[in-house]
Amino acid sequence: MTGTDGVPAFPTSLGTSTADEIRLLGEDLSADLMGKVGFGELAFWLVALRRPTPSETRVFEAVLVALADHGFTPTAIAARLTYLSAPDSLQGAIAAGLLGGGSRFLGVTEDCGGYLRDVLDRHEGPLPADDAGWDALALAAVTRTREAGQYVPGLGHPVHKMRDPRTPVLIGIAEDEGLRGPHLRLFEAIGRVHEQVLGRRLPLNGAGVCGAALADLGLPVELLRGFALLARAAGLLGQIAEERRRPIGMDAYLTVDRNAVYTAPSADSGPDPSR
Amino acid sequence: MTGTDGVPAFPTSLGTSTADEIRLLGEDLSADLMGKVGFGELAFWLVALRRPTPSETRVFEAVLVALADHGFTPTAIAARLTYLSAPDSLQGAIAAGLLGGGSRFLGVTEDCGGYLRDVLDRHEGPLPADDAGWDALALAAVTRTREAGQYVPGLGHPVHKMRDPRTPVLIGIAEDEGLRGPHLRLFEAIGRVHEQVLGRRLPLNGAGVCGAALADLGLPVELLRGFALLARAAGLLGQIAEERRRPIGMDAYLTVDRNAVYTAPSADSGPDPSR
Amino acid sequence: MTGTDGVPAFPTSLGTSTADEIRLLGEDLSADLMGKVGFGELAFWLVALRRPTPSETRVFEAVLVALADHGFTPTAIAARLTYLSAPDSLQGAIAAGLLGGGSRFLGVTEDCGGYLRDVLDRHEGPLPADDAGWDALALAAVTRTREAGQYVPGLGHPVHKMRDPRTPVLIGIAEDEGLRGPHLRLFEAIGRVHEQVLGRRLPLNGAGVCGAALADLGLPVELLRGFALLARAAGLLGQIAEERRRPIGMDAYLTVDRNAVYTAPSADSGPDPSR
Amino acid sequence: MTGTDGVPAFPTSLGTSTADEIRLLGEDLSADLMGKVGFGELAFWLVALRRPTPSETRVFEAVLVALADHGFTPTAIAARLTYLSAPDSLQGAIAAGLLGGGSRFLGVTEDCGGYLRDVLDRHEGPLPADDAGWDALALAAVTRTREAGQYVPGLGHPVHKMRDPRTPVLIGIAEDEGLRGPHLRLFEAIGRVHEQVLGRRLPLNGAGVCGAALADLGLPVELLRGFALLARAAGLLGQIAEERRRPIGMDAYLTVDRNAVYTAPSADSGPDPSR
Repeated sequence: MTGTDGVPAFPTSLGTSTADEIRLLGEDLSADLMGKVGFGELAFWLVALRRPTPSETRVFEAVLVALADHGFTPTAIAARLTYLSAPDSLQGAIAAGLLGGGSRFLGVTEDCGGYLRDVLDRHEGPLPADDAGWDALALAAVTRTREAGQYVPGLGHPVHKMRDPRTPVLIGIAEDEGLRGPHLRLFEAIGRVHEQVLGRRLPLNGAGVCGAALADLGLPVELLRGFALLARAAGLLGQIAEERRRPIGMDAYLTVDRNAVYTAPSADSGPDPSR
Repeated sequence: MTGTDGVPAFPTSLGTSTADEIRLLGEDLSADLMGKVGFGELAFWLVALRRPTPSETRVFEAVLVALADHGFTPTAIAARLTYLSAPDSLQGAIAAGLLGGGSRFLGVTEDCGGYLRDVLDRHEGPLPADDAGWDALALAAVTRTREAGQYVPGLGHPVHKMRDPRTPVLIGIAEDEGLRGPHLRLFEAIGRVHEQVLGRRLPLNGAGVCGAALADLGLPVELLRGFALLARAAGLLGQIAEERRRPIGMDAYLTVDRNAVYTAPSADSGPDPSR
Repeated sequence: MTGTDGVPAFPTSLGTSTADEIRLLGEDLSADLMGKVGFGELAFWLVALRRPTPSETRVFEAVLVALADHGFTPTAIAARLTYLSAPDSLQGAIAAGLLGGGSRFLGVTEDCGGYLRDVLDRHEGPLPADDAGWDALALAAVTRTREAGQYVPGLGHPVHKMRDPRTPVLIGIAEDEGLRGPHLRLFEAIGRVHEQVLGRRLPLNGAGVCGAALADLGLPVELLRGFALLARAAGLLGQIAEERRRPIGMDAYLTVDRNAVYTAPSADSGPDPSR
Repeated sequence: MTGTDGVPAFPTSLGTSTADEIRLLGEDLSADLMGKVGFGELAFWLVALRRPTPSETRVFEAVLVALADHGFTPTAIAARLTYLSAPDSLQGAIAAGLLGGGSRFLGVTEDCGGYLRDVLDRHEGPLPADDAGWDALALAAVTRTREAGQYVPGLGHPVHKMRDPRTPVLIGIAEDEGLRGPHLRLFEAIGRVHEQVLGRRLPLNGAGVCGAALADLGLPVELLRGFALLARAAGLLGQIAEERRRPIGMDAYLTVDRNAVYTAPSADSGPDPSR
């Protein structure tokens, strides 16, 4: 497929425009979308290429709300420190904050959605009809994962050691909207059975339940991290607005710098977190 | 104000949590926000520290929808090329795209909102009561700006030379919601009178009208660029989802690389866009 | 270990300063380093915590020179497009370019160094004394890798299909400096034997030989990508300096945008590169 | 100028390659540059499009060494926090650190070089022949700047209140190499005369003297920030290598998070640093 002058054509289903019309997703942006489609609805549509139902939108936005801001996270502090150093570049501060959205923190949402999808993909025959069936599927999966020496994503939380308040609420919203699908049911079952395998009870965390809910919405699990990043972009904007009103970046920086202690170079000192 | 152990306290109105509760903006995240507050509503709240009304939310989300994606912009292409090179880091591709959200492209929204606010700030006495009054205020401002050798932000568009379809639609939505305030009225007046000063008729562009509408919502004009970045984060997620389904990054890269022509080094060759 | 007021102490071997002295790596920055230590030498020292010998510095800088710029790569184009959109933020353009330094492009240097180290780590007994011994070790490794369905990093190049000119030159420099160690020898052996296993002859590429040389310098293989990023930072600065003198960003963007073709949304269209 | 198929040609003086040759700056990369040109030398060449002399290289590298790392700066902490959150993306951590290289911190180098150049550009007639002449020029410039209510970049330092040790050393190196040019002489004169205008004695800081020295090397003042970013890329690599050996990111984050104090939302609380 080529365009003018033998240059390859660049196909897209997203934004295109002519002198007097702007189209997005095949719709007329100003006539059909502005004022008629919500922002969360559009974000879903841009990725899934279909307009979500009101029920899907409610679950989707509940996830974005759950992930938007968790206070002074490393990513929020990084964004504020970047804004402190480069107040001329708001985009740089937001980008710096999003760059922390990797495997360790925001990654859980994606890892959990992917884990659940893989378990469902390798399951043969019809899905379980009752909790007992889901528990059996979950038990086999957790056992397999444990035997492989891997961890089950979505279990445990450094602060909410007993119970993550977001989990039952999101499951309830999905239930209300008729969207409590196989990923959420499997995740709930993992919550019931993991103690038998791991020997201790861990809470189903909020990042994990968000990944399960997004997967039940049919969104691509390879991009679930992206929704956490979108949610976090709103949170980071709030963090920077607050940094302008009531700065803490300078104090955060000085608290570290003033407690710096020179230690003689020694390549072998300390553990290497990567090993 | 200090916290434990003489460390400075770090005040925040955003996210805080305890072992069994997660709070955001002083609300209980799971009980009061998830499923009850929309994502756009929360984004507004995080910056303005007040929950927007349904009317404000509709105008605000219409702005985010208008700014989310404009197709193959330099920022969208940069995000796709970054994803091509580093598919292991979705956050890097989104961040790379947002980094283009600076003075030239996304900056218009912020520049226009700031320009309108400055004109209103330096205006003494009551605001105009009718279009004639707004036209007089606009004419004085455009004339002053022209005399200072500066440009009026929000005027003109490379593609929509006659008329930007987003402009009348957003003004209409603001009017419907009773939120067509002084920034929008002044912007409309600039649209009516600038030809008298500049000698040619330019359209009021979409980025500009978005800045005017956000300013009328009482959002801080120093952060208007941030809302364009939030909107763009959704668009970039769509661009990357599409890059996964139907890649164009490799073709875009090869089209440039295959047409590279070596030119002998010569420091003085070509204009320096900064001068 | 705690600092003042019960705040944790923050140990560092890098930069520290007092009112009248600035120290770096335990040295007096102005008295002992400025004008006496080269920049490449310092970069090595900052990571390895030991000053490299002149021979190590020569090999190290040869690697940085080899990796600095490869013309219109996706990362260079992304940096130029970002500079086009946000000329007010040079740091954003450099950062956007570096964000492409991931698994696919710059990753080869790191992957190759890590692969070679793993083969050497799992080898028992003394290292081979001659080429025949290295060939046997390489043959076993390539066979194992092939059987595991994985690829051998550092083999093959899209442009330099026969021979990558950087490879013999870097090996020669390492030989001259007495630094042609086990990683390079194993890499060379892979170049000799892989055809027996893979059925076709592939060149040892420049990124791979750089990874082998850096590993022979004793640098941490988990950070080899970082040296490629440092080298690329210089290249990106050159790209942006050229973008200022003789811009191509606008043409690159328009070439894509003008050949955009709207395609009806269809989630299943096209392959998903991740699967 | 067009390339194949009517696509625009993309001229470059940097990297180009064919199946069997890789060229950079018009040179054969492997035959003429690797092992023969230092990394700092190449970085200068990539921007200036001319190979620096050994003297220029020594001054240039002394500047890079001076700017590479200043310990726990906001940018170093941001990079470490980003690495803590996303250890899978080294490029993201380096990019996050560089994004702090803006107007407030790294900007001084660029601002100072630009300030000095502007003073020299507006000076008519031959340059001063002696210190008295330079003092007169500096006095006029500082007075003009003060009257305009602006500040003179390169004066003062939060830690080195009396004297920045880098300043005399860099001037000495430039003197040794015969490169103590008009920008440095003017900067030194500002150091002698500013007290007469500002009423207090401030030290000439290290970032400022680096900007002056780079300007005397004939490098484009609009890009001086870029050299600070290149230097800092090496420092950030050292910071992340140390974060792997002996992490402080988690402690830095927890020190802030554990001292978070919820404060009721109040848009007008606190000063707005932007006003």
